[in-house]
Amino acid sequence: MSVLVVGTTALDSIKTPKKENPKLLGGSASHAAVAASFFAPTRLVGVVGGDFPAKYIRLYEKHGLCLKGLDRVKDGRTFHWSGEYEVNMNNRRTLETVLGVIEHWQPAIPGDYESCPYVLLANIAPAVQLRVLDQVARPKFVVADTMDLWLNIALDDVMRLLKRIDCLVLNDSEARQLTEDDNVVSALPKIHRMGPRYVIIKKGEHGSILSSPKGLFVAPAYPLKKVVDPTGAGDSFVGGLMGYLASRKSGSIDSNLRRAIVHGAVVASFCCEGFGLTVTTKVSREDIDARVRELESIAGLD
Amino acid sequence: MSVLVVGTTALDSIKTPKKENPKLLGGSASHAAVAASFFAPTRLVGVVGGDFPAKYIRLYEKHGLCLKGLDRVKDGRTFHWSGEYEVNMNNRRTLETVLGVIEHWQPAIPGDYESCPYVLLANIAPAVQLRVLDQVARPKFVVADTMDLWLNIALDDVMRLLKRIDCLVLNDSEARQLTEDDNVVSALPKIHRMGPRYVIIKKGEHGSILSSPKGLFVAPAYPLKKVVDPTGAGDSFVGGLMGYLASRKSGSIDSNLRRAIVHGAVVASFCCEGFGLTVTTKVSREDIDARVRELESIAGLD
Repeated sequence: MSVLVVGTTALDSIKTPKKENPKLLGGSASHAAVAASFFAPTRLVGVVGGDFPAKYIRLYEKHGLCLKGLDRVKDGRTFHWSGEYEVNMNNRRTLETVLGVIEHWQPAIPGDYESCPYVLLANIAPAVQLRVLDQVARPKFVVADTMDLWLNIALDDVMRLLKRIDCLVLNDSEARQLTEDDNVVSALPKIHRMGPRYVIIKKGEHGSILSSPKGLFVAPAYPLKKVVDPTGAGDSFVGGLMGYLASRKSGSIDSNLRRAIVHGAVVASFCCEGFGLTVTTKVSREDIDARVRELESIAGLD
Repeated sequence: MSVLVVGTTALDSIKTPKKENPKLLGGSASHAAVAASFFAPTRLVGVVGGDFPAKYIRLYEKHGLCLKGLDRVKDGRTFHWSGEYEVNMNNRRTLETVLGVIEHWQPAIPGDYESCPYVLLANIAPAVQLRVLDQVARPKFVVADTMDLWLNIALDDVMRLLKRIDCLVLNDSEARQLTEDDNVVSALPKIHRMGPRYVIIKKGEHGSILSSPKGLFVAPAYPLKKVVDPTGAGDSFVGGLMGYLASRKSGSIDSNLRRAIVHGAVVASFCCEGFGLTVTTKVSREDIDARVRELESIAGLD
C-alpha cells in the first residue's frame, strides 16, 4: 500500500565545525518521503520555488516518488533553513529561516491521493497538517510529527491535530514541553489523553520509546561511530517507519509497529552519516535490511 | 558461585527538591553487595567507623552478606557523603565528603575469600582496587567500576587497573573523559586497547551499551514513571549483573552477560524508586524476576 507524505521541501545550508554545505536538499517531507520510498510507493505533497534545482527533482524521481502533489511556484523562493551544529552534534542553532513559498501555501491533495491508506504529516505548521486531513478519506493510519516551534506558537492547532491522528511522534524535550512533565515515561499517558492511541518519543542516539495499546516498547538506535549531520534523522525515522508499515501484507499495526520502528531507526542512522540526504539517497534496500539484522542482533538477548 | 564485593560502605545524606534524608545506608559496596545478594552468596569487603548504626549491620545480615571482610574501626568515623539533586534528578551536586576511616584504609582480604571466582571492584580509589587484586588468586571474572574523580586525580592507577581486569563499567561522560572521544561508540575500542575485554557504558535512564568479543549489545533501562533518588543505581546495576553471572550454572560469560545486564538494570530500577537502599532492601527475587520478564517484553520485537 502507498504512503502519502506532507511536509516541508527545503534547501538546507548546514554548518558543522568541520564543513559548510550550502543549499542541500532538505525539509521534513524530503527526508521522510525518500525514507518511505525504500519500502512502499510514496507520494510527496509539498511546495518549492523557481530556485529549486532540477537535480533535486531528479533525485526524488530516482526514488520513485510520485510528485503530482508537489506544487511549483515559478516566481517564488524555496523554503530555506540554515543552521549550525556544535562539536558534539547534539546542539543545533538556527542561523536563518526564509519561509518563501511555504509561508502562504495551502496544500491541495490530488484527487487520487485521497484514499491513500498511510498518511504521514511530517513536520510543518499544524494548520497545514489539519488542512491535509480535511482532504483525505478515512486513512488506515495517520502519523504526525511536530516540533517545539509549533508548541510555542500554534499550540491550539497542535491540540486540534492530536484529536485527529493515530500516532504522534515527538522528541523527549517536546514531550516534556507538551505535558509539563519532566519524566517522559509518565508524560506518555498524558499525551494519550490528548488524542493519539500511539505515541513515539524520539531520543536521538538513545533510541525511542513507543507507547501503544500493547504497552511500551523501548527501541535502540543504531550505534554510530561517527555522526556527520543529524539533520533530518527524525524525519527519516518516521518516514522509514511508515514505509515499512505500508509494505506489510499481513499483521495489524500493533504487530508490525515494533519492527517498523527498527527499520525507521536504521534509515535514520544512514541519514546521520552524511550531510542532508547525501548518504540516504545512496543506500539500497539491501543495505537497510543488513543493518536491520545487525541492530536486531545488537538488541537481542541471545 | 560467590561474589566478592569491595568498595565504600558509607552514610549518605541526600537532599532532593522534596526531601532531606540524613545518614542513609550508602556506599558503592553496600548497593552492589545487596544487589548481588539476590542471586548469589556475596562477601562484602569494606570499612566502617564506630558511628555505623547496628541496624545497617542487621540489614546486611538480612541479605545474607558475609561480613568477615568488613573492617570496623571503633574510634573512627564512617565515610560520609552528602549531596543534592536538582528537580530533573539528572544533576547531582556534592555538598560534603568526609572520608573518615576510608582515608587510610588498606583492605585485607580474608584468607578464604582469595579463591572467590567473581570479584567486583565497586567504585573506590583505584589504589584500593589494585590492592585487592594483589590478594586474590586468579578469579574467573573481575569487574571494576570507577568515577570521574579517579580519572582526575589518580589516572595512572586507573590505567594500571585497566590492564588487570576483565570488564570496566563506567558512565558515558567518564568514557568521553577517559578517551577524549565525544562519541561513546568510537570510544569503546579505545578503552579495550587500555586492557579490558569487556566494557559497559552506563547511560542512566537510556540504558547501557556492552562491548564484548561478541560485539555490541544495546540494553534498555527499565522505564520508570518516577525517579525518587538515583544514588547507587550504577552500583546496584553492576552488583546485580555480577550476582546473576555468579548464579549461572552453565554457559560462558559471553553467553550470560546480556541477561546479566538486564538483571542489573532491573535491580537499579528498584534502587531509583526510593532513597538510598530503602526500596532495594524491600524487594524479593520474585519482584526482580517479574520486572525482568516485563523489561524483556518491553525490549522484544514480537
